[in-house]
Amino acid sequence: MLDPLALVSVAVMLLVAKLGGGLFEKFRQPAVLGELTGGILLGALSLFGVAWVDGLRGDAVVAALAEIGVIILLFEVGLESNAGEMLAVGWSSLLVSTLGVAATFALGWGASALFLHGAHALVHVFVAAMLCSTSVGITARVLRDIGRLQTREARIILGAAVIDDVMGLLILAVVAGAIRAAAAGQTLALADVGLIALKAVAFLAGALLAGQYVVPHLFRGAGRLESRGALVALAVAFCFLLAWAASLVGLAPIIGAFAAGLVLDEVHFESFARRGEQTLTALLAPVSALLVPVFFVLTGLRVDLRAFGRVGVIGFALLLTAAAVAGKLACSLGVTGRGTNRLAVGLGMIPRGEVSLIFAGLGATLALPTQGGAEAPVVNAATFGAVVIMVVVTTLVTPPALKWALRREPRGETMKSERGTMN
Amino acid sequence: MLDPLALVSVAVMLLVAKLGGGLFEKFRQPAVLGELTGGILLGALSLFGVAWVDGLRGDAVVAALAEIGVIILLFEVGLESNAGEMLAVGWSSLLVSTLGVAATFALGWGASALFLHGAHALVHVFVAAMLCSTSVGITARVLRDIGRLQTREARIILGAAVIDDVMGLLILAVVAGAIRAAAAGQTLALADVGLIALKAVAFLAGALLAGQYVVPHLFRGAGRLESRGALVALAVAFCFLLAWAASLVGLAPIIGAFAAGLVLDEVHFESFARRGEQTLTALLAPVSALLVPVFFVLTGLRVDLRAFGRVGVIGFALLLTAAAVAGKLACSLGVTGRGTNRLAVGLGMIPRGEVSLIFAGLGATLALPTQGGAEAPVVNAATFGAVVIMVVVTTLVTPPALKWALRREPRGETMKSERGTMN
Repeated sequence: MLDPLALVSVAVMLLVAKLGGGLFEKFRQPAVLGELTGGILLGALSLFGVAWVDGLRGDAVVAALAEIGVIILLFEVGLESNAGEMLAVGWSSLLVSTLGVAATFALGWGASALFLHGAHALVHVFVAAMLCSTSVGITARVLRDIGRLQTREARIILGAAVIDDVMGLLILAVVAGAIRAAAAGQTLALADVGLIALKAVAFLAGALLAGQYVVPHLFRGAGRLESRGALVALAVAFCFLLAWAASLVGLAPIIGAFAAGLVLDEVHFESFARRGEQTLTALLAPVSALLVPVFFVLTGLRVDLRAFGRVGVIGFALLLTAAAVAGKLACSLGVTGRGTNRLAVGLGMIPRGEVSLIFAGLGATLALPTQGGAEAPVVNAATFGAVVIMVVVTTLVTPPALKWALRREPRGETMKSERGTMN
Repeated sequence: MLDPLALVSVAVMLLVAKLGGGLFEKFRQPAVLGELTGGILLGALSLFGVAWVDGLRGDAVVAALAEIGVIILLFEVGLESNAGEMLAVGWSSLLVSTLGVAATFALGWGASALFLHGAHALVHVFVAAMLCSTSVGITARVLRDIGRLQTREARIILGAAVIDDVMGLLILAVVAGAIRAAAAGQTLALADVGLIALKAVAFLAGALLAGQYVVPHLFRGAGRLESRGALVALAVAFCFLLAWAASLVGLAPIIGAFAAGLVLDEVHFESFARRGEQTLTALLAPVSALLVPVFFVLTGLRVDLRAFGRVGVIGFALLLTAAAVAGKLACSLGVTGRGTNRLAVGLGMIPRGEVSLIFAGLGATLALPTQGGAEAPVVNAATFGAVVIMVVVTTLVTPPALKWALRREPRGETMKSERGTMN
């Protein structure tokens, strides 16, 4: 029987999420920060001896719902991206993404080596990997709010963010594989690293090919089913199957969920749309509105405020934030084309969000042998807290900075009247 | 970390549910029977040594999702019912419901006493209680299909079905309380039984009063939150809170979920509707499309086909079905008003569905001391299988019988042209 305590836990988490998210949105800040902050405050109750909060942190049902929420979230991210569009944005996005990821990775490694002196090299790699992805939602929101979503800058940013996600997931696959090998006492040869990367690429390529040739037939056949809710059920089943398949080849389930989203396209659901059913994105919205906040509140809950008492953790957080900001600003060097607002592209790539937090959550469950011979989590309480602060700060600074940069028109740009083309 | 096996399990269950449901709908049968049958067939794989199916039966995450699905389902049932309308359908529905429940209860007790000779008296009470509720969905579907949803018969049936649900939940509260006391070695005095019933009534009344005076203010305040998905998140949080509150006063969580649905009304969400958000019912549809099939497939999975090998189990199933049919046909004696098609009302009340299956699932987790001193589940494998067969048979026979009875116009009925008023 389901423990009714799990029900009240989820209910409280939803209330905290919507209250926090709603308050932050009132002040034109992203809701996800409100959910995270709500979770941190809820977690602070355990400092005052509220044992229920400690139970919440370890509740298996709540954790399962949060993880399913993340899988649904990555599925949605994948749905929003489109393999065809990714290829169309072309070289500029690829160059921006590669430069940004490389610079951030290098700076992140440096910051980690500086602060986590003496830790396993793979810890530094993991910390660096956590900084790489871009959470483009907040940038897209700002661009839409000021009517610039159709500009060249916007297209470069959005394309590069998708490539960032793919690169981040590839790095995660390799790092997690290396950590698992190290935990088992083996060291990975370069060939093994290559093998993991190859598996990840092969998985994504295989999923894309299947998407091209198999999925349309499957969903056309499924469209003949008149069962209520068949579309959303089949789509989620497909997502879960790919998440499981990813775990079979040693990748994180979220990689499979992302691939499932990338592969599915509204065109596959024509037969459903003709019956007047809602789009998959609309159907998934209430599902993710229920599950995703559970993940973000739980992430906030898991921030150990006691870690901040220790000297230097705030310093580590600021160091990581600086690395995250500087790394993405460097990517503006990759912007090609005269008259493109390079600074705006760099600033637009700064925000970190769900992918960094998901990485942090994963890292907290991985362990590496320490020099003393014992095991230590790859992401300890200090690192976890520092990453959460990095996410909060990068997300908060982006909107004002981006608006400022876009008002500063670069020399030579042909002023296009783009206001009013909001969608 | 979430076991990826849970993901593939849920995916397979969704596929089985939609395939089974879709096939049954092709033959104009209710989808829920297809989901149940799909689950039974999936469960049959374990007879051929597929160990994965056995793991599925005991998977904690899958079980939690199924139970949350049932809570969402009862929430939806409550949302469809409306306290005001319930009072308006008046005495005829109350009389029909009371007669039907009383007759079914007596016959069910008899059938159980006959077949489960020597079992604890509370087992008979529980079996009888499982037969009482009416699953009106299939009847409403048939009435709508033939354009008779606005007739007096339809209104009596729909009203009586809601009262059946409330009575069934009250009986469940009392029986479960008595079983828990008996399992602890106590016997319940009549005063205790009265206390449990009183608590249940007080809970429902309290929830209704809160719904009248507190909920509108709460949701009006919440309407100011601009957070995406606030409506569905707050409504589900409210449902979970009431489910938990119900468990606090010793009632089943589903009673709280039903009360939450009864209390919430679309009027409370005007501020959301004004922003162009979807109705709560529409938002919940994809959530229940994902979770509810997990419950029905799991119910089918838990049918132990080996039980049918034993002599008499099929006989027990037929006995229960006969009691279920005869009990509800007796309720047609309660139909007042000349010219009302009594037979149609009685036939319309026959189908059993989700509530009986939920009771069976609950009963399988409750245990009572046997005469030998050991413990036995209140609902054993034989009873569970018999109840599932009863649900399948009553649901399958209703549509043709009801259509036949409605074509046989009773003497004295004024023919109203109701075709075309389908909604």
